[in-house]
Amino acid sequence: MTTAPNMQSMSLSLPHKWMERYGKVRNQTLRLVETLAPDDQMVQSMPEASPTKWHIAHTTWFFETFILKPYMRDYIPFDARFTGLFNSYYKRLGDHPDRTIRSTFSRPTLDQIFLYRNYVDKDIRNLLDHDASPRILQLLELGLNHEQQHQELIITDIKHAFWTNPLRPGYQPNQIRSVEWGAPSLTWHCFNEGVYEVGHDMGGFAFDNELPRHLTYIQPFSMASRLVTNKEYLTFMADGGYTRPELWLSDAWDHVCAHSWTAPLYWEQAGDEWTQFTCRGTLPLNLSEPVCHVSFYEADAFARWAGARLPTEFEWEVAADSIGISGNFLEDENYHPRPAGTQAGLQQIFGDTWEWTASPYSAYPGYCVPEGIEGEYNGKFMCNQMVLRGGSCITPVSHMRKSYRNYFPPHMRWQFSGIRLAHDGRFHVGADS
Amino acid sequence: MTTAPNMQSMSLSLPHKWMERYGKVRNQTLRLVETLAPDDQMVQSMPEASPTKWHIAHTTWFFETFILKPYMRDYIPFDARFTGLFNSYYKRLGDHPDRTIRSTFSRPTLDQIFLYRNYVDKDIRNLLDHDASPRILQLLELGLNHEQQHQELIITDIKHAFWTNPLRPGYQPNQIRSVEWGAPSLTWHCFNEGVYEVGHDMGGFAFDNELPRHLTYIQPFSMASRLVTNKEYLTFMADGGYTRPELWLSDAWDHVCAHSWTAPLYWEQAGDEWTQFTCRGTLPLNLSEPVCHVSFYEADAFARWAGARLPTEFEWEVAADSIGISGNFLEDENYHPRPAGTQAGLQQIFGDTWEWTASPYSAYPGYCVPEGIEGEYNGKFMCNQMVLRGGSCITPVSHMRKSYRNYFPPHMRWQFSGIRLAHDGRFHVGADS
Amino acid sequence: MTTAPNMQSMSLSLPHKWMERYGKVRNQTLRLVETLAPDDQMVQSMPEASPTKWHIAHTTWFFETFILKPYMRDYIPFDARFTGLFNSYYKRLGDHPDRTIRSTFSRPTLDQIFLYRNYVDKDIRNLLDHDASPRILQLLELGLNHEQQHQELIITDIKHAFWTNPLRPGYQPNQIRSVEWGAPSLTWHCFNEGVYEVGHDMGGFAFDNELPRHLTYIQPFSMASRLVTNKEYLTFMADGGYTRPELWLSDAWDHVCAHSWTAPLYWEQAGDEWTQFTCRGTLPLNLSEPVCHVSFYEADAFARWAGARLPTEFEWEVAADSIGISGNFLEDENYHPRPAGTQAGLQQIFGDTWEWTASPYSAYPGYCVPEGIEGEYNGKFMCNQMVLRGGSCITPVSHMRKSYRNYFPPHMRWQFSGIRLAHDGRFHVGADS
Amino acid sequence: MTTAPNMQSMSLSLPHKWMERYGKVRNQTLRLVETLAPDDQMVQSMPEASPTKWHIAHTTWFFETFILKPYMRDYIPFDARFTGLFNSYYKRLGDHPDRTIRSTFSRPTLDQIFLYRNYVDKDIRNLLDHDASPRILQLLELGLNHEQQHQELIITDIKHAFWTNPLRPGYQPNQIRSVEWGAPSLTWHCFNEGVYEVGHDMGGFAFDNELPRHLTYIQPFSMASRLVTNKEYLTFMADGGYTRPELWLSDAWDHVCAHSWTAPLYWEQAGDEWTQFTCRGTLPLNLSEPVCHVSFYEADAFARWAGARLPTEFEWEVAADSIGISGNFLEDENYHPRPAGTQAGLQQIFGDTWEWTASPYSAYPGYCVPEGIEGEYNGKFMCNQMVLRGGSCITPVSHMRKSYRNYFPPHMRWQFSGIRLAHDGRFHVGADS
Repeated sequence: MTTAPNMQSMSLSLPHKWMERYGKVRNQTLRLVETLAPDDQMVQSMPEASPTKWHIAHTTWFFETFILKPYMRDYIPFDARFTGLFNSYYKRLGDHPDRTIRSTFSRPTLDQIFLYRNYVDKDIRNLLDHDASPRILQLLELGLNHEQQHQELIITDIKHAFWTNPLRPGYQPNQIRSVEWGAPSLTWHCFNEGVYEVGHDMGGFAFDNELPRHLTYIQPFSMASRLVTNKEYLTFMADGGYTRPELWLSDAWDHVCAHSWTAPLYWEQAGDEWTQFTCRGTLPLNLSEPVCHVSFYEADAFARWAGARLPTEFEWEVAADSIGISGNFLEDENYHPRPAGTQAGLQQIFGDTWEWTASPYSAYPGYCVPEGIEGEYNGKFMCNQMVLRGGSCITPVSHMRKSYRNYFPPHMRWQFSGIRLAHDGRFHVGADS
Repeated sequence: MTTAPNMQSMSLSLPHKWMERYGKVRNQTLRLVETLAPDDQMVQSMPEASPTKWHIAHTTWFFETFILKPYMRDYIPFDARFTGLFNSYYKRLGDHPDRTIRSTFSRPTLDQIFLYRNYVDKDIRNLLDHDASPRILQLLELGLNHEQQHQELIITDIKHAFWTNPLRPGYQPNQIRSVEWGAPSLTWHCFNEGVYEVGHDMGGFAFDNELPRHLTYIQPFSMASRLVTNKEYLTFMADGGYTRPELWLSDAWDHVCAHSWTAPLYWEQAGDEWTQFTCRGTLPLNLSEPVCHVSFYEADAFARWAGARLPTEFEWEVAADSIGISGNFLEDENYHPRPAGTQAGLQQIFGDTWEWTASPYSAYPGYCVPEGIEGEYNGKFMCNQMVLRGGSCITPVSHMRKSYRNYFPPHMRWQFSGIRLAHDGRFHVGADS
Repeated sequence: MTTAPNMQSMSLSLPHKWMERYGKVRNQTLRLVETLAPDDQMVQSMPEASPTKWHIAHTTWFFETFILKPYMRDYIPFDARFTGLFNSYYKRLGDHPDRTIRSTFSRPTLDQIFLYRNYVDKDIRNLLDHDASPRILQLLELGLNHEQQHQELIITDIKHAFWTNPLRPGYQPNQIRSVEWGAPSLTWHCFNEGVYEVGHDMGGFAFDNELPRHLTYIQPFSMASRLVTNKEYLTFMADGGYTRPELWLSDAWDHVCAHSWTAPLYWEQAGDEWTQFTCRGTLPLNLSEPVCHVSFYEADAFARWAGARLPTEFEWEVAADSIGISGNFLEDENYHPRPAGTQAGLQQIFGDTWEWTASPYSAYPGYCVPEGIEGEYNGKFMCNQMVLRGGSCITPVSHMRKSYRNYFPPHMRWQFSGIRLAHDGRFHVGADS
Repeated sequence: MTTAPNMQSMSLSLPHKWMERYGKVRNQTLRLVETLAPDDQMVQSMPEASPTKWHIAHTTWFFETFILKPYMRDYIPFDARFTGLFNSYYKRLGDHPDRTIRSTFSRPTLDQIFLYRNYVDKDIRNLLDHDASPRILQLLELGLNHEQQHQELIITDIKHAFWTNPLRPGYQPNQIRSVEWGAPSLTWHCFNEGVYEVGHDMGGFAFDNELPRHLTYIQPFSMASRLVTNKEYLTFMADGGYTRPELWLSDAWDHVCAHSWTAPLYWEQAGDEWTQFTCRGTLPLNLSEPVCHVSFYEADAFARWAGARLPTEFEWEVAADSIGISGNFLEDENYHPRPAGTQAGLQQIFGDTWEWTASPYSAYPGYCVPEGIEGEYNGKFMCNQMVLRGGSCITPVSHMRKSYRNYFPPHMRWQFSGIRLAHDGRFHVGADS
C-alpha cells in the first residue's frame, strides 16, 4: 500500500527539487516499459488505445512543444516533423494524424524515440538550470501530470494489446501474487444533507476541470464501505444480469446486445470456472477482489439490480474528505486490484479501481478554459462522458487528489474501473459478500 | 400567442371533464394529419423519426395497452398482433420491432388504423363511464401527455420527411405568415446566488423525471433576454464558426467534420441568400427569427464564440419561475418560431424553440423509477442526452410546465431547438441584434 | 403453363399492332398492383428494392424521357421535376436521388402518379398515330421490355416488403393453390464437345448484352433434368451445409457467417417443420417444389456438396437450344415455382426459377455499348455479378428468350432464383429426390 | 533485366537440388527484410495487408504444417500454438485469428520468429536428407511457390505501410535509379481468330487454377505493344477521367465517389507537378514509366476512354505464347516498373506491372479442387475477383509462367498493377505516348 507524499508542503520552488521530480516521473515511465519488446510497443489493439512507443514519444513531445519551443532560446528541435506526428489532438497546433493510424508509426524506430527522449530531457534540465520562470514551472508540472496519466494508459493499453493477441502473454508474467483474503461485509456510511464545498482547494497542482471550488447542495446519502466484489458481480450475472433489459439504461441495453456482452472485459468462462486476464496473464477469478473492467453501463445496471445506485461525484468527494490518500497504487506494482481490508471506515476509496459515478462530466460553475495551448486539455471533452473518482492500482499515488476527475465514455471498460454503491438517505442494511 | 389553461385548478376528477379533455387531445392529433395523404403518412426519413401513421397507431396502442387490457373487464383487443407491432420500446411487454422498420408497416392500412383508433376511443369512453378509478385516471393523464408529445413528433418527423423528398413539399403550403418585425436588443437579467428549490411542485401532472422537488445551490448568473436570432447566428457563421475547432467540443468537432455541417438543419444557400425549409415550404431566411434546428453542439459552440455559455436547466427554471406559460405554441398554428417582442423582461422563455441547456439529462436526487410499465418512460434514457427547456412553437401549450424536461442527444437537430445564452455572475453588457 | 407467342413472326411494324402491345404490357402492370393499398406501394424494405409506386412512375418516366421528350414535337412534360426524381441511374441525364430514399417520395401521391401514367400513355398513342419512326419503335420496344423487367421487380419487392412487416401479409392471400405432386427423379442429359454458336440470333428484340452472336468452345458436359428441390436442399442442410466452410467459396463463407444464414430466404423453422413465406403468405414447405430464393453462394455450395457444379451460361444456352419457351410464368398467376413434371427431357428450363450459372456477367467478344441513353442500360453493370438464365414464375413469358441474360450480385436472394446442376463430361448416375 | 531459369529442364528430382532451391528461396525472403526494423515489421496498414513479420512466420508455418507435421516422424513442433496463430485461412485446420488483428501479434517477437524459421529449416533439410518422397517434394515445391508469393506481398505491404506513416519513409532509400528514357510509340499486334489451347501444359510446377489445359475459341483481336504510360494516364485525368461517370462501370463509379479517387494510389499533386511514392520514397512522376497501382476499375475506365478495352486472360496468354519470360523482375532490385524499350514486338509482357485482364477469375472447364489441405489454396477464391497476368517488378522471375493467374478484387490497387490495352479485330492505328 502506498501513501501519497505531502505534495503541498514539498517546496517545489527550488529548481533542483523540480529536477528531482522530473527525473523521478520520467524514469518511472521507462521502468514500466523495460520488459516490453520493440514489437510489443507497436501494437494498437483498438482505436482508443495507443502503442506504448507512441506514449513514450508523445509525453516527450509535450515537454518539447509546450516548453522548449516557446520558452527556450535557440532551441533546435530534434526532428521538426515530430510536431505534427506526435500531436494527439491539439487543433491549435495544426493538422495531426488520425489517432487510428498510430500503429503505423514504425519510423521513428523505438531507438530513435529514446534518443528523442534523452535529447528533450537534456534541454529541459538546461532550461531549468537557467530559466525556471513560474510559467515554465507551471507547464513543467502540467507535463509531469500529463506523463503520469500516460503511465496509466501504457498499462491499460498494453494489457488490451496482449489480450487481443491469441497467445495472451502477460505483462508481468513472473510476478508472484500475495496471498488473498476474503472481503469484509459491506456496510453503509451515512452523510448529512447540506451545503458542501467541493472542487480543488487551490493548494498544489490541479487540472482546470477541478476548479473553481464551489458550494453545492447535497441531499442525505449513504456510501458503501467497499467496492463491489467479483463474487457479488457473479451473483448479478447468475440472476440474469446481462439478459434483463429492465436493469439497464436504454443505450446500455442496445450496447449489450450489439456487442454480446455477458461478463466484464477480460473475463472468460472455462467450464464452471471463470478466469480473468490480468497483467500476469490469465488467472482464476478471485472472488474477493473488486470487480474491475466494467463500463458505466454495467456499473449502473449492477447498482439497479442491487437496489442501490452509483454515487454522484460530489457525494464521493464529500465521503473522501476525511480519508488519507493511501491504497493499492501503481508504485505497489500489483497492477491489479486487491480485496478490501478489515479496517473500520470506508475502504478502497483510493487506488484499486476507478469508481464510476452517476455524474456526467460537465463544467463546474464559473469554470474557465485556460488560456493557451493547455486550453484543449480538459474542457473540450465535457460531453458524453461520465466522471470516475479515486484512482486505480495503476495510478501513480502522487498523481491522485480528492478533487481529481477522471472521465470516460459510458461504454468503455478497458480502464481499471469498478463499482461503489450509494443510497439515498440514511441506509443501514448490510449486504454479505 | 397562446396561454396555458390553469390546469391545476381545473377539476379533472369528474369523468365528463376527463372525457372532454380526452376528446380534445385526441382530436388535435387528427387535425394535425388531415392534410396528409396516406403516402405521406408512410415515410420514415431517418431511424430517429417515425411515420405519421405509426404515431397515430402508437398513441392509440398506449391507451389500449396501458388501460384497456389491464383494467377493462372482458376487453377484446382490436387485433392481438398490434401489442407487439406498435410497441415502441417497452421491453417488459416482450419483443418489439426494431424502430428502423416502421416504414414497412403498410398493413394495417391507414384506414384500418383509424378504425383501431375509433375502437379504442369508444372503449376508453365506456371505461370512464363505468370505472374511473384513480389509477385509470392517472394512466389516462399519462396517455394524454404521451399523445401530446407525439403531436410534436408528428410535425418534426413530417417536416424532415418532406425535406428528404427532393420535391420539398410544404406541410402547410397555403398558410399566410404574419408580417415580421425586428428583434429587440439582447439584454441580461441577473439572478442571485443561493439555495433554490427546483423540480415539480406536485400540483397537477408531471413526469417522474421532474421529481422530486429538491434544493440546489446556484451561483450568481445572468440570462439573456431573448433567443439568439438568425442574424446573430449568421455572424457566427461569417466569423468562421463552422471551421474553427477551438469553438467546439471535441465530439462536436468530429461530428461537424464527419457530416460536413456548415449551417443549421434546413438551411440552404442560394447565391448570397439563405433559405430555410419550413412547414410552409422553402422560404427566405428571416433574420429576426430565433435560430432553430441547431444541435446542442452548435448551441454550445455559438455560446463559446459569443463569450457566453448555455444556462443550466436549474438556472433556466429559476429564471422562468415568475413568468407565465404563454407564447408561440402549437395552437397558434404557426409551426415556426417568431421574432421576440419588445416587452421588458425575459422573452420567449416558453414556446418558439426548445432551449438547449448545459445540463446532461440525469436523475434528480431521490428520483424513483415508477412501478409498472411506465417505469420505462423516462428513467432509462438518462444517459448521453442533454436537457432542453421551455417548449416550442409545435408544443401544445397545455403540455408545458416550468419543470418540464425535454431531452435529446447532443447531435440531433430535427427538433425545433434553439439557443438562449447565459453568463456567470452579474453581466450587464448588451449585445445588439 | 404459358407458352411464348411467336414474337418474331408477329408483324409489329403496323402502328396498331404496337399500340395493342403497348396497351397490353401497360395494363399488365396495373393488374399486378390492383390489390395493393397506397400504403403498400410506399414500402422500400431494403436499398436494393423499390416501392411499387416508384416502379409505376419510373416505367412511365422511361417512355417520357426516352421517347416523348426527344421525339414528340411540343411535348409538355407532366411535371418537369420528375425528370430528376424518377431517374434510376442514368448519369447522362444529370443528378438523380440516391436509391435509398425512394421510400420518401410520398409526393407525388399515388393518385398523381396514375394521372402521370395516363398523361404519358395518351401522348405515346398520339405519337404512334402520327410518327412511328423506326427509332421510336425501337425505343418503344425497349421501354416495353423495361416495363416487363419492372413487373418482375414489383413482385419481388412487394414480397420482400410484406416479409419485413412483422404481420407478414400475403400479396395474393385468397389464391387457391393447385394440388401438388412429387418431383420426378433427377437424370442427366449429355452434350458433346465442340464449337457452338451462342448469343442472340438477331430475330426480334434482344438486349445489347446478348450480342453479338459468336462462337465458343464447349467441353463435354451433362445437365440435370430438373431444378433442385426443397427436399434435396433440406438434405444438404441436414448434412451441415451451412456449417461446413469447405463447401463454400471464401467470400460466400464470410457472408454466411456475417449474416447468420442457415436456410434460404423466406424459410423459417417452426418446431420440426419448415415454412416458406410466399405471395400467398406463410405456407408449409412443399418438398417437391424447386428450392427458390437462394443466392449464387448457396447454389454453388449446394452443387459442390452434391458432387456437381453449376452450368456455365453457354452450357445452359446450348442445352436450351431445342426447347420451346413454355413453363410456369407470370401469366399463370402462381407467383411461385411448381414441381417438375414427369415428361422426358429437360424440365423447367424456362419459368419457375431463374437458374444461377457459373458465369460471371461479362461482355461478349465484340460487344458494343449502344449509342445514346440506352448505353447505360446493361454494359455498366458488367462486374461483380453472376448470370442467371431461363426466367421465373414471375417473368412475363413474352419477355423470355434463350439468349436472355439476367444478372445479380452473388449474395442477393430476393429474386426467384434456384439451382440446376451440371457435370463435366458424360455423367450418367441418377439421383433420387 | 532478369530471365527465368529453364525450370522445366532443371532436374529437381535430386534432393541436393531441392535443398539448393529451398535455401535460395528462403534466403531471398531474408534479404528482402534485412533493412527493416522490428518496428517496421509490425505494421498492418489495412486489413488486406499483413505485417512483414507475419509473412516471415506464415511462410515458415506453411512448411511446418503441410510437410513436417504430417510427414516427419516424431516431429516436435516449435510451438504448438503457432498452428492456429499463423494460419491464414485454412478452415480445415480449425479456427484462425481474424486477419485484421495480425498487427497485435507482438509475441512471438521477431527474434523468436527467426528462431522458428531456423528450427523449421533444419528439420526440412533433415527430412529431405532421409525421406524425399514425391508427395513431400510436391508440397515442398508448393511451399516455395507460396513463399515467393509472400515475397511479393512483403514489398507491397511494407510499401503501403510506409505510405500510411506521415513521415513517408522509403523501403530502399539509398538506391540509385538508372537513367530513364522515353517510352516508344504504342503499336498494335494482331492475332487470328480460332480455337486455341490455353492453360498450363503440364511441364513443371503450376497451381491448380492453371489447369486443365483446354481449348477455347478466340475472336480476332489486337494487343498493344507496351503498357500504358504515366503520360498517357495523365492525359486521361486531364480529360476529366475521374469526373465522367460514362467512362466507368457502375460499381466503379460508386467506388470512385465513395473514396474520392482522383489519381492512382501513391500519386500526389504538389502544385503543378505530380509525385509518386515509391520504394525509394517520394519521387517526381516519371512520364515514361508504365502507370502502376491502378485498380481494375481504373484500368477499365482508361481503356474505355482510349476507345479500346482490356484483353481477356486468354488473349493475353495467346499473345505471350511466343515470348520468353524475361523482364524487370524482383531480382533486378528496382522494385519499380521501368519504361518500355525500343525493341520490336510486344514489350513488358513479363515483369514491370501485373496486367489487369477483362476476365473474372473463374474455374477452367474440368477444374478439380486438389485433395487435401492445398484444396483451399486457389479454388475458393473464384468469385468477385479479376485475373491479372504477367508478373511485376517485384515478382521473382522463377515464379512466373505464361499460364500464371494472379487475381484481386476489382477495387484493390496496392499491388503493382498496370494496364495493357487490347482491341477487337485487327487494329492498326498507333497512339503516340
